[in-house]
Amino acid sequence: MNIRQIDHIGIAVRDLDKFLSLFGDILGLEIHDREDADPYGGLRSAFARIGETDFEFLQDRAPDTDDKRIDQRDIARWIEKRGEGIHHIALRVTDIEEAIQDARTKGLRVLDDTGRPGARGSKIAFIHPKSTGGILFHFVERQDGE
Amino acid sequence: MNIRQIDHIGIAVRDLDKFLSLFGDILGLEIHDREDADPYGGLRSAFARIGETDFEFLQDRAPDTDDKRIDQRDIARWIEKRGEGIHHIALRVTDIEEAIQDARTKGLRVLDDTGRPGARGSKIAFIHPKSTGGILFHFVERQDGE
Repeated sequence: MNIRQIDHIGIAVRDLDKFLSLFGDILGLEIHDREDADPYGGLRSAFARIGETDFEFLQDRAPDTDDKRIDQRDIARWIEKRGEGIHHIALRVTDIEEAIQDARTKGLRVLDDTGRPGARGSKIAFIHPKSTGGILFHFVERQDGE
Repeated sequence: MNIRQIDHIGIAVRDLDKFLSLFGDILGLEIHDREDADPYGGLRSAFARIGETDFEFLQDRAPDTDDKRIDQRDIARWIEKRGEGIHHIALRVTDIEEAIQDARTKGLRVLDDTGRPGARGSKIAFIHPKSTGGILFHFVERQDGE
């Protein structure tokens, strides 16, 4: 499957500014790729670099949306159920199509048949958390092959 | 504060063997430092290497213990309340005493006045999750300075 590293840890937040102050100003991490526009259909997001990994902060701007495109990213409903906190872990792979097939062969329930567009030019595929001890993972392949 | 990387992600588990099969056999990560003995007063633990980070699996063997030494590590009670899943994130720092003082100066509630012994010869200090958006973090300094 060739999992190389943790690409990022996704954190569901109610207040993006509060988390960026905590992770940037207080913990001293570098904040980057902040998006207050609408790249995912309703989300605000930003990253905090930590070694080879990032924290990815996700805030849903439209908690009462009926937009079904954002099924995996329905952060507002997630927070309503579980509170703010860790939403998913992204596993960096070299070849996402190979990772999807290999994971399915080994019995994991992969929700995407093929890598679909993720943040920053990546391809991603989610694994159902019932396959992975209740933790939501997704594979991610980056275009630059890094 | 000089946070260098994510040292490990702690995962509370009911069944260590199930998780080691998932992360070792299925995801293909290297399992190491498995402890079925009793280093922390009641826990079984093991690690799965992923890039510069580890997953740390923690299973409490004695859910009905009255042993108060394992306050931070009362995995059974954690699981009872929240289910299996991510328990904490460990932030690797160069100097834990400096990190504790710096964090307190910046208003974080650090639960340990000084670095106390952690796994594999490390020194650790927990931060109250109310300071950090509901996520449990601890600092960790390693003896070898790595």
